[in-house]
Amino acid sequence: MFRNAMPRYEILSEDALATLDGGWRRLVSEIGVEFGSDRALELFRQAGQKVEDNVVRFDPDFLLEQVAKAPRSFDVQARNPANTVHIGDDAMAFGAVYGPPFVREGEVRRDAKMEDFRNFARLAQGFSVMDSAGGIVCEPEDTPLDSRHLDMTYALQTLTDKIYMGNVVSGENAQDTLRMTEILFGGRETIEKTPATISLINCNSPLRWDERMLEAQFEYSAAGQPVVLTPFILMGAMSPVTVPAALVQQIVEALSGIALSQLIRPGTPVIFGSFLSNINMQSGSPTFGTPESGLGLLCTGQIARRFGLPFRTGGGLTSSQVADAQAGYEALMTLLPTFLAGTNWVMHAAGWLEGGLVAGYEKFIVDIELVQMLRAEFTPLEIDEDSMAFGAHEEVGHGGHFLGAQHTMERFRTCFYRPLLSSSDNFERWKRNGLLDTNARAGTIYRKALDEYEPPPLDDAIREELEEYVIRRRAELGD
Amino acid sequence: MFRNAMPRYEILSEDALATLDGGWRRLVSEIGVEFGSDRALELFRQAGQKVEDNVVRFDPDFLLEQVAKAPRSFDVQARNPANTVHIGDDAMAFGAVYGPPFVREGEVRRDAKMEDFRNFARLAQGFSVMDSAGGIVCEPEDTPLDSRHLDMTYALQTLTDKIYMGNVVSGENAQDTLRMTEILFGGRETIEKTPATISLINCNSPLRWDERMLEAQFEYSAAGQPVVLTPFILMGAMSPVTVPAALVQQIVEALSGIALSQLIRPGTPVIFGSFLSNINMQSGSPTFGTPESGLGLLCTGQIARRFGLPFRTGGGLTSSQVADAQAGYEALMTLLPTFLAGTNWVMHAAGWLEGGLVAGYEKFIVDIELVQMLRAEFTPLEIDEDSMAFGAHEEVGHGGHFLGAQHTMERFRTCFYRPLLSSSDNFERWKRNGLLDTNARAGTIYRKALDEYEPPPLDDAIREELEEYVIRRRAELGD
Repeated sequence: MFRNAMPRYEILSEDALATLDGGWRRLVSEIGVEFGSDRALELFRQAGQKVEDNVVRFDPDFLLEQVAKAPRSFDVQARNPANTVHIGDDAMAFGAVYGPPFVREGEVRRDAKMEDFRNFARLAQGFSVMDSAGGIVCEPEDTPLDSRHLDMTYALQTLTDKIYMGNVVSGENAQDTLRMTEILFGGRETIEKTPATISLINCNSPLRWDERMLEAQFEYSAAGQPVVLTPFILMGAMSPVTVPAALVQQIVEALSGIALSQLIRPGTPVIFGSFLSNINMQSGSPTFGTPESGLGLLCTGQIARRFGLPFRTGGGLTSSQVADAQAGYEALMTLLPTFLAGTNWVMHAAGWLEGGLVAGYEKFIVDIELVQMLRAEFTPLEIDEDSMAFGAHEEVGHGGHFLGAQHTMERFRTCFYRPLLSSSDNFERWKRNGLLDTNARAGTIYRKALDEYEPPPLDDAIREELEEYVIRRRAELGD
Repeated sequence: MFRNAMPRYEILSEDALATLDGGWRRLVSEIGVEFGSDRALELFRQAGQKVEDNVVRFDPDFLLEQVAKAPRSFDVQARNPANTVHIGDDAMAFGAVYGPPFVREGEVRRDAKMEDFRNFARLAQGFSVMDSAGGIVCEPEDTPLDSRHLDMTYALQTLTDKIYMGNVVSGENAQDTLRMTEILFGGRETIEKTPATISLINCNSPLRWDERMLEAQFEYSAAGQPVVLTPFILMGAMSPVTVPAALVQQIVEALSGIALSQLIRPGTPVIFGSFLSNINMQSGSPTFGTPESGLGLLCTGQIARRFGLPFRTGGGLTSSQVADAQAGYEALMTLLPTFLAGTNWVMHAAGWLEGGLVAGYEKFIVDIELVQMLRAEFTPLEIDEDSMAFGAHEEVGHGGHFLGAQHTMERFRTCFYRPLLSSSDNFERWKRNGLLDTNARAGTIYRKALDEYEPPPLDDAIREELEEYVIRRRAELGD
C-alpha cells in the first residue's frame, strides 16, 4: 500500500484553528446533535451528557476524552495478507466508488446490474493501486432488495482478496456482513483482534444521526470493526454556505459519532469522515471538484490530525455525465488535494461519475491513471551525488542529447512514470490509430482488464460455507 | 491581477538544497556553458570568467553577484493601467499559449492563420483572468515570415490593452518590437522607466545559448525590458533522466543567462525561467502533466525563491490531441502545482494542446475555467465568528436545510465559485440540452466570447503611427 512521505499542505493558521475550536465547542454544547436511537441516547445520558428529547448537548471536553480512546492508526486485514492495509499515519488506502444506482459504458447509461457490480469488483482487484473495491460499487437493481447485501458481500469476498466495506443499511445487514466475515477469516476472535471490514456511517447533516445507520454502527463498533463517521455535507444545503461553518459542523458531527463508538466499545477503531462539497446556488444541484471543496479537504486533514485521528475524504469526484475534460479536471481537483492532505482512507477513488449517481467504466480507468500518477508524484525525490548525473554531462557535452548516455541507459525503464491511459502519440500516429480520444482508449483498457481478470484462489470449504450462509439467509429474508 | 496569499508547498529539505547547491556549482565551473555570441563571450571574458572557444566556465560566486543585481520584483506596464502587472513576490500573471504552428477547433486541426492569432488575442483580452495574450499565440502561416513579427506585435498592441511579449527571432525583430512599444507608450524613456514587454529567451539545453536568441536578449536587456531566461528541458533528451540533474542543469542555464543580462545592463529585470517536462522513454515523444514535471515545478519555485528571483514555470500543458479527459487532467496536473509553487509568470496558461504544437480553441476555454477555479481555491479563507454562522444553525435546527436561511440569502450570489464551463446539470436536463460534453460546450463559449469581443479604445494618432511603422518596415524587409 501507499505511504505518502511528502509534506502535508496545511493552510490553517493557529489563530484560525483556535477560532474553529471555539466554534465547534459552542455548536456542540448549545445546539447539540440529534440521535435517532434510544440506545445511543441512553449511553450518552449514562455518560453524563445533557439529553433532551432526541438531542444531546455535549460537554466538548467529554468528546475529546472519548476521542482520545480511539487508536491513532490500525490495520484492516485482507484475506490475502499482502493486501492488508494500514489506516492512519502516512498511509493512504484507496477504495472504488460507493453507492451509484446507474452505470455508464460509452454512450450507454443504464441501471446497474449484479454483473456490473462483479465487473467493478474485478477491476478493483486487477489494478494494484486499489486497496479495495469498496462496498456498494454500484446498486444492482436485478437482485432483491432485502438480500442484496448478501450477494454484494459474497462478490467482494470471492472476486477480490482485498479489504471490503460492510453493509450499513440496517443492524441486521451489519450482522450478516460480520457473520460472513467471520466465516472468511476463521471466527469472531480473529476479526476482533485485527478488523477485516470498514463501514461507512453517514450523518444526516445537519447534526442528526439516523436510526438505521446507528444500528449498523452498534454492530460494527461492538465487534471492533472500524467505522467511518462521515458528515455528508453539500454546503448551502446541509450546512451554511461558508467553508468555516461547514468545518465546524463537520467536527461536531464526526466527534459525536466517534464518541458513540467509544461508549459502545472503548478503543474501537474509528475514522474521522468527511464528504464535503457544495451545491450550485443558482440551480441547487450538487457540484464536485470545486475550489471550496478543495479548501475544505485541505482543512479537514489538518483538523483530523489535530484530533489524532485517521481520516477519510477526497476521491475522484465530478459532476460530469461522461469521462470528458470536466471529469478529468474535477476528479484531479479532488484527488490532488487528497494527496496534499495525506488522506488515510480514500473512498470513491475510481469510477465516480455524474455526482455519484453513476459508476463509469471509462471513468474508472481515468481515475486509476490519476491515482497511479499521484502516487508517483507524492514519492519524495532522492537527491544525492548520483542523481545529479555529473558524468552524463561529461559524456554528452553542450547542446548534445542524453538519449544514448550511459546514465540514461541504466535507468530508462523505470526513470519516469509509465502511463496506462494517457497518450503522447504524435498527430500522424494518433490519426493512424483511429483518432481515439481518452474516453475511447479507456474503453479498450477496461475491457482488456476484464478479459484478463483472474479470480484470486479461495479455499473450497470456505466458499461453500459462505454460499450456504447466503442461501440460508436469503430464504429467511423471503427472497 | 492575482496575488497568491496561500502558503507555498515546498518539498526540498535544507539537505537536498545543499546537495543541489554543490551540484550546480560543480557543473557551472567544470563543464560550463556555451554561448553562440562573441559579444556575450567578450563580456564574460572582461568580467574575469574562463572563456575557452565558446564555452564559459564560471566562478559560481560571480554568478551569484550578478544575480544579486537583478530586482526581486518589478512592474510591467500595460497601455491600460488597470492591466499593468507585477512580476515577483506573491503576484501571479498569466499569458496564453506561445508558439503553436497549428490550431484546433472541434474536429478540425489545421495550419494557424493570422485571423486565428487575432482570435486568440481577442479571447485573451476578453477573459479577465488572463493578464496577457502572450507573444506568439500561434504562428500565422499566411503572413510572410520576415515581417510576421510586425503583424503579430501590431495585433497584440491593438486588439488587447494588456501586456504582451516581445519577438525574439532575431536582434532586428527585437528592435522592431521595441520601436513599436515606444510608439505605443510614448517613447524610450517611458518604457525604460517601467518596462512594457516581457521576452522569452530559451536555452538550447543542455548548456548552450544560441546566437539569435542572444541577439534578442542584448536588445531587450539593454532597453531594461525583462527577459525570461528559460532552460528548455525535456528530461531524458535535453537533460539526464533524473529530476535532481534537471534541476541542477536548470540552475546553471538560468543563472548564466541572467548574468549576461546583468552585464549588459546591471539591474535590468530578469525572470528565472523553467520549462521542464520529460520524454516518454519508450517512444521518445515529449510528455506533459507528468508526475516528474510536477515535482520539478514545485522544486523550481523553491529554488528561484532562494535566489531571490521572480520565476516562470507551469501552464496548462498536455500531450492530448483534443480537449478530452487527458487534456483536462494533464492541464490541471501542471496548473495546480503552478499555484502551489506560486509561479510569478505563467506562460501557456490557456490554449495549449498536443504538446504545444496546437493552439486549441476549446482547450483555451477549459484552461480559463481551470485558472479561474484555482484563483478561487488559492484565496485564503476568512475564518471569524461570522463565517461560522452559528445563527444559521439556530434558525435551521437538526436535519433541516440551509437553502432558505438568512445567512444563505445574504451570500448566495457570491459564496461559491460560479463555473464558466463545468456543468452540474442532472441527466435529464443534460439530455434535453443535447448531450453536450465539455468540449462541445467549450466550443459554444469561445464562439460567444468572440462574438461579444469589443476592441479596447486606442488613440487614432498612435494607431496611425503604428500602422505606418509596420508598412514601412514590411517594405524594407521585402514583403
